Amino acid sequence: MNILVVHGPNLNLLGMREPGIYGTFTLERINGAIAELAAELGCTVSFVQSNSEGSLVDAIQQASGGFDGILINPAAYTHTSVAIRDALAAVALPVVEVHLSNIHRREEFRHHSFIAPVAVGQISGFGPDSYLLGVRALFNHIKKEIVTQA
Amino acid sequence: MNILVVHGPNLNLLGMREPGIYGTFTLERINGAIAELAAELGCTVSFVQSNSEGSLVDAIQQASGGFDGILINPAAYTHTSVAIRDALAAVALPVVEVHLSNIHRREEFRHHSFIAPVAVGQISGFGPDSYLLGVRALFNHIKKEIVTQA
Amino acid sequence: MNILVVHGPNLNLLGMREPGIYGTFTLERINGAIAELAAELGCTVSFVQSNSEGSLVDAIQQASGGFDGILINPAAYTHTSVAIRDALAAVALPVVEVHLSNIHRREEFRHHSFIAPVAVGQISGFGPDSYLLGVRALFNHIKKEIVTQA
Amino acid sequence: MNILVVHGPNLNLLGMREPGIYGTFTLERINGAIAELAAELGCTVSFVQSNSEGSLVDAIQQASGGFDGILINPAAYTHTSVAIRDALAAVALPVVEVHLSNIHRREEFRHHSFIAPVAVGQISGFGPDSYLLGVRALFNHIKKEIVTQA
Amino acid sequence: MNILVVHGPNLNLLGMREPGIYGTFTLERINGAIAELAAELGCTVSFVQSNSEGSLVDAIQQASGGFDGILINPAAYTHTSVAIRDALAAVALPVVEVHLSNIHRREEFRHHSFIAPVAVGQISGFGPDSYLLGVRALFNHIKKEIVTQA
Amino acid sequence: MNILVVHGPNLNLLGMREPGIYGTFTLERINGAIAELAAELGCTVSFVQSNSEGSLVDAIQQASGGFDGILINPAAYTHTSVAIRDALAAVALPVVEVHLSNIHRREEFRHHSFIAPVAVGQISGFGPDSYLLGVRALFNHIKKEIVTQA
Amino acid sequence: MNILVVHGPNLNLLGMREPGIYGTFTLERINGAIAELAAELGCTVSFVQSNSEGSLVDAIQQASGGFDGILINPAAYTHTSVAIRDALAAVALPVVEVHLSNIHRREEFRHHSFIAPVAVGQISGFGPDSYLLGVRALFNHIKKEIVTQA
Amino acid sequence: MNILVVHGPNLNLLGMREPGIYGTFTLERINGAIAELAAELGCTVSFVQSNSEGSLVDAIQQASGGFDGILINPAAYTHTSVAIRDALAAVALPVVEVHLSNIHRREEFRHHSFIAPVAVGQISGFGPDSYLLGVRALFNHIKKEIVTQA
Amino acid sequence: MNILVVHGPNLNLLGMREPGIYGTFTLERINGAIAELAAELGCTVSFVQSNSEGSLVDAIQQASGGFDGILINPAAYTHTSVAIRDALAAVALPVVEVHLSNIHRREEFRHHSFIAPVAVGQISGFGPDSYLLGVRALFNHIKKEIVTQA
Amino acid sequence: MNILVVHGPNLNLLGMREPGIYGTFTLERINGAIAELAAELGCTVSFVQSNSEGSLVDAIQQASGGFDGILINPAAYTHTSVAIRDALAAVALPVVEVHLSNIHRREEFRHHSFIAPVAVGQISGFGPDSYLLGVRALFNHIKKEIVTQA
Amino acid sequence: MNILVVHGPNLNLLGMREPGIYGTFTLERINGAIAELAAELGCTVSFVQSNSEGSLVDAIQQASGGFDGILINPAAYTHTSVAIRDALAAVALPVVEVHLSNIHRREEFRHHSFIAPVAVGQISGFGPDSYLLGVRALFNHIKKEIVTQA
Amino acid sequence: MNILVVHGPNLNLLGMREPGIYGTFTLERINGAIAELAAELGCTVSFVQSNSEGSLVDAIQQASGGFDGILINPAAYTHTSVAIRDALAAVALPVVEVHLSNIHRREEFRHHSFIAPVAVGQISGFGPDSYLLGVRALFNHIKKEIVTQA
Repeated sequence: MNILVVHGPNLNLLGMREPGIYGTFTLERINGAIAELAAELGCTVSFVQSNSEGSLVDAIQQASGGFDGILINPAAYTHTSVAIRDALAAVALPVVEVHLSNIHRREEFRHHSFIAPVAVGQISGFGPDSYLLGVRALFNHIKKEIVTQA
Repeated sequence: MNILVVHGPNLNLLGMREPGIYGTFTLERINGAIAELAAELGCTVSFVQSNSEGSLVDAIQQASGGFDGILINPAAYTHTSVAIRDALAAVALPVVEVHLSNIHRREEFRHHSFIAPVAVGQISGFGPDSYLLGVRALFNHIKKEIVTQA
Repeated sequence: MNILVVHGPNLNLLGMREPGIYGTFTLERINGAIAELAAELGCTVSFVQSNSEGSLVDAIQQASGGFDGILINPAAYTHTSVAIRDALAAVALPVVEVHLSNIHRREEFRHHSFIAPVAVGQISGFGPDSYLLGVRALFNHIKKEIVTQA
Repeated sequence: MNILVVHGPNLNLLGMREPGIYGTFTLERINGAIAELAAELGCTVSFVQSNSEGSLVDAIQQASGGFDGILINPAAYTHTSVAIRDALAAVALPVVEVHLSNIHRREEFRHHSFIAPVAVGQISGFGPDSYLLGVRALFNHIKKEIVTQA
Repeated sequence: MNILVVHGPNLNLLGMREPGIYGTFTLERINGAIAELAAELGCTVSFVQSNSEGSLVDAIQQASGGFDGILINPAAYTHTSVAIRDALAAVALPVVEVHLSNIHRREEFRHHSFIAPVAVGQISGFGPDSYLLGVRALFNHIKKEIVTQA
Repeated sequence: MNILVVHGPNLNLLGMREPGIYGTFTLERINGAIAELAAELGCTVSFVQSNSEGSLVDAIQQASGGFDGILINPAAYTHTSVAIRDALAAVALPVVEVHLSNIHRREEFRHHSFIAPVAVGQISGFGPDSYLLGVRALFNHIKKEIVTQA
Repeated sequence: MNILVVHGPNLNLLGMREPGIYGTFTLERINGAIAELAAELGCTVSFVQSNSEGSLVDAIQQASGGFDGILINPAAYTHTSVAIRDALAAVALPVVEVHLSNIHRREEFRHHSFIAPVAVGQISGFGPDSYLLGVRALFNHIKKEIVTQA
Repeated sequence: MNILVVHGPNLNLLGMREPGIYGTFTLERINGAIAELAAELGCTVSFVQSNSEGSLVDAIQQASGGFDGILINPAAYTHTSVAIRDALAAVALPVVEVHLSNIHRREEFRHHSFIAPVAVGQISGFGPDSYLLGVRALFNHIKKEIVTQA
Repeated sequence: MNILVVHGPNLNLLGMREPGIYGTFTLERINGAIAELAAELGCTVSFVQSNSEGSLVDAIQQASGGFDGILINPAAYTHTSVAIRDALAAVALPVVEVHLSNIHRREEFRHHSFIAPVAVGQISGFGPDSYLLGVRALFNHIKKEIVTQA
Repeated sequence: MNILVVHGPNLNLLGMREPGIYGTFTLERINGAIAELAAELGCTVSFVQSNSEGSLVDAIQQASGGFDGILINPAAYTHTSVAIRDALAAVALPVVEVHLSNIHRREEFRHHSFIAPVAVGQISGFGPDSYLLGVRALFNHIKKEIVTQA
Repeated sequence: MNILVVHGPNLNLLGMREPGIYGTFTLERINGAIAELAAELGCTVSFVQSNSEGSLVDAIQQASGGFDGILINPAAYTHTSVAIRDALAAVALPVVEVHLSNIHRREEFRHHSFIAPVAVGQISGFGPDSYLLGVRALFNHIKKEIVTQA
Repeated sequence: MNILVVHGPNLNLLGMREPGIYGTFTLERINGAIAELAAELGCTVSFVQSNSEGSLVDAIQQASGGFDGILINPAAYTHTSVAIRDALAAVALPVVEVHLSNIHRREEFRHHSFIAPVAVGQISGFGPDSYLLGVRALFNHIKKEIVTQA
């Protein structure tokens, strides 16, 4: 089982900026923890991060075929990108949406997600743990799908 | 570490009704899986379910002192209960909000949660797995708090 | 054929208060008229009234199995209760929603019903006659269902 | 007692089109059932159907004097016609509004009725039975008025 | 100078219905007073009343050529008719909009006029006097136009 | 019969500024025309103009006793002043609201009037003629009141 | 293949009024161009124009049986007519909606179409060419349908 | 004179939780102060607190007959309960609504009160003093009523 | 302890106009009652009334230094004045906002207060008693502040 | 005559994904059909597709000089991109906007186009045929412009 | 070149109150700095401050003739005064709007400016420097106008 | 002191397109004027322009360390980019937002800025001068910060 982990804009700064909001973990360290958990669960992960909406659309499109599911933290594009939503709908892989902070506690405009309606589910508010919970959620979801199809 | 698991209205019917939406697991079976995971993580859990907003407020109030955190699926009261929100804010324990279905994909009125702004985070869309992910999320959160306070 | 008649909050005061709005019939007298009409149509009715949202959810859940349909005047909970809506959807019995007064003529917040989208239909504005019309509507609807299934 | 039954636009197609939504009864057959029930109750009915808002206004105006009440299914004009509302208010006869389908379950714009605030009450969702329930509702309402005035 | 006076739906009932709102003058008597004032000012008037939006559009279209201005009380169509607005814009004659009652004091939906933005001005609230004031307003407006063009 | 004519803010600039919108008549010339018409009708007029909301409230309050009606062009305060509305309601004299331009054709925020619901009626769009029509409207209204009371 | 071309209110004035907005072509000339293109494509066309919503509903209803598709420019009724929408849905023929002007550039209230959700597609902004493009679009759509059914 | 003091959900926690918002007084101590003031004014008070909307409705209904007025802090139900509003309207006793905190300074959803329109008045923001001011307000109001009726 | 009592626009008419809404007490008599209560409590009061927003801002600014708190009935300016709100925030004295009528029962635009968020609390609906309750509320609030600072 | 055809995000997947919504034609095949029609009409076309908003802005800017018009399917950016709108306005070439699906039938957020107000017109709902109709529309529009300028 | 500097309500308190928001500069010191910069640029400045909307309107009207431009900090009236907007539009001088604080970061109601649409531009957020930047902006704007007219 | 000047989409076209709105200065010439003023003030500037949201995010992220402040004209992304807002918040440098045109005078959607709440202040409407004023504003702001920190 292969999982693509997609990090949206400004997540490359994690751990270096605003630790009060986003915690002190760097993206590298989060990716390390994800890889470790994935190994433990018996699946492989690849990572992509971009500040560009178009590049994220490209990456999602290319997931088709090589991956069984997508774990995405769309960051700022959660609230503004129909293009990423359409790309996720187009590749038709199971998607889990994660957020470090609890978006429902922040500014009004962060309460709405264009991504959620094309995702299996959403996890928000647990810092780096959101990613790890997301890996488990996606892993379990895909396993069930495989079982169902078998 | 003690965790109170609070199930909102109509969840007592789980597995018996509308399996297309809510899955085929009964609440008893979900509670069993939660207890199993909790044991594995090394914490204890108690369960409460009620169809009454007032009784849920009572149960949350009584959590104070005996519990280290609350895992809640407020179900229909997610969207209408300020009283449950206020009770959760009052007991000042960490709260994790879970939903079986992806509430962001359903009717417009289910997109808004009165509970989310007083919770650490929210997990929705993974069926019974939402509860198990919620237990992990809450467990990790409390452990970090204990470490921080030590 | 068994029908459960559910009366929402404050309907126990009928005939004793605000006759200008709600008429001079007591709930008992309305129930009597309903029972009489039901007998005439050849079906039995049971009655429940509660001021508590949770108790109404309980009563609706318990209708499953013993009843062929529900006649409900959700009163104030029409406009605020997702829990009752979810309970009605869960038991999956045909539901007819009735109101004594014409809710479309009253305050703006009374124009919206959380219940209507899970009901077969809605009858409002005819005083106690709303209930009697509702019994007929529900009776006819169930009879057609039986015919269709046969 | 004379009742005018007013059918709005496109109802002349009943039974011939979209039986999935509107049932398989033709308007003629519905009118027959209404006449039968009216006869049983001891009152007479006249029928008018038009696709034109202006003709419906004309018909309603002419009801004054010759009729004791109006049963109306305003169909599409429910949501757009202030002129029909004003005509109904002007003739000052008791009005009962009926709908074949449950308008509260359909598109958002069908939830609002310009007619309801000038009607005694509204019945929706019971197919042709909505008309028959409406005849009863109107008949009982007029009878009570006569009694009150006597 | 020729003026076309256009009366919208239900105005044919004037003086016969709801005198509390619309006064005790019949439309005939209002037309008489208008004609008298017009004669005094030295211009001629023609009258048209219809309950049909389409007939009013027809009448307005035919005003082109034969008339120098239009005095219109669009009644209920004030709030719902884009077709009448477009007809008035198309004939490009000066239009004065009048209302018997003060529409800004009535239901919210009566505060908006589709007609006002294509009219020279609006007069509302003075009962039959609204028409007479409207005749003067239109007469003065056309006279100024003639002077300007000369 | 005494009429108070109240001119709101910036109307002292009339005829001197923006003739494209407000015409070329000075306020003095408008007042002259009003006085002339009033004399012709057999009533007296007084004039007040102020750029200050408070002074306009003062002037309206003082109208009580000495005047039989108020003709007001509230100008910018039409859209923002509850204080002037309350003053007009308090003195309980008949009020006619006039506007030089057609406020329903201008910016969205000019479509709403706080004054209209406490006025007999509103006249807008006829330039200085709005005032003269307003004098007639108010004169006729007061005369009818006197007749009714007699 | 037979196509019904339906022209809404005020389109009879085309070419005679407001050429700046609607161009200099008369409706007759547009119909001529449509007929020519239809002949070229090998299908026949009939034309109907009315200023009355009810007459347009009648015309659409009568299209059933005799026509394979409807090309409609609903003009002002685009924004206000649920009755025409319901008629189009009832006859269940493929519908193409066209507009001479680009409705998305005009007043806010012209941006919304009640017709679009029951049409195959919408073409707006190309003057008389909108009709010709619409004929092609409808022709191709029907041809594909025929192929699919064969 | 007998007054019923009704405390809504979570007020049983007063003084024990979130003293920063709600002060350090326990509900018991507040009740003591109320009783003391009532005694001083010469009236008796009874107290009820519940976390359940239904129980509060029950309590309010039972006030009829035995009490001359109701002092209520509906807490969270202020913003969500039509049932409590309807109960208060039904018993037709004078009601004074009080709040410890200034609800107009808190989250947007706390600015709206379903209770205020059926209350004599509202007092908010003065901590426990809100209750004491409310007792005085209610006492004076009832006294005036008695005087008026005498 | 010195308290400034600020009366907004039209309150100078109290007792003379609209006794149905505002009671029969003159402002003078209300001021007398306030002074009496203040004396009883052991504090002094000064009074200011103005119909002008600017004068009210001036008066509030001048309160700084000489007064310990402000009791204000902003009347119409409650709903429209940011300037008064800013003045109250600038002088940084405790403010109590009072209203004679229950503003939550009146027109929609009277439900919103620009003043409430900068006030300690709000009292509305008790007629002249609102002022007396306000004096008590403010007096108690200031006393507690003094105690806290000591 | 040279036309630039701009395809927005995810259109590179056409024919490969979600054929139920977007048809079975690949983008290549659509481009082939466009080229064929263009050749037939006597004009040349160039194609550009990108998933990146910035690259689309670049491409549009570079159209200036080399092209006579732009045919654009902005896909997801239709609803979110002011930058593309501004680029189209800046190059000041005639623009035709096309959509494969009928955007007025889909989710609410797809009903609004930032592009439409800077386009000549919009065509939506005809699958690949939308492009071909768009080529014709643009071709005719440019030809007319050339004629007008000649 | 003469510039009128207009200070709105509460700005007379600058430097004396709430230095955390508005800085520690008094209005006098700001005026001094403005005068200094003006001298340096070679123009003269006059100052006016008022807490009264009407006085500000008066001052703006009187600027006509004697001044070449207006620098205004409308303070609270930014959000509520149509009268000041109309006065600025009437005098037809170039206007620059400045704010000490960044109004786009504060309460929602401070985001909207009635003044901005009649100003050349807006500068907000730089404390006293906003005024100095505004003087430069206005000076440059007027100079360009003079050049253009020459 | 180093300042990064960031130009958003389509600004590379400045001076070449739509001079009526954006003036006749090229971006190069504006950059020259900025550099000149910066030199005069004693600071250095670097420039970046991109049509891509992602590239702008990249550029802003890289400003950290090498720059003391950012001057940004986000152009179209002002209204749609949460990603740029988040990048600016993340680098935590002082930001000044500038606009050539007065965005408060243009289309409604241009009135809202996602950037303003993370900027020190905003300057709009002065053409190229907006940039020069912005340099001064940012320079002064940074100098004050340095002084404060020293």
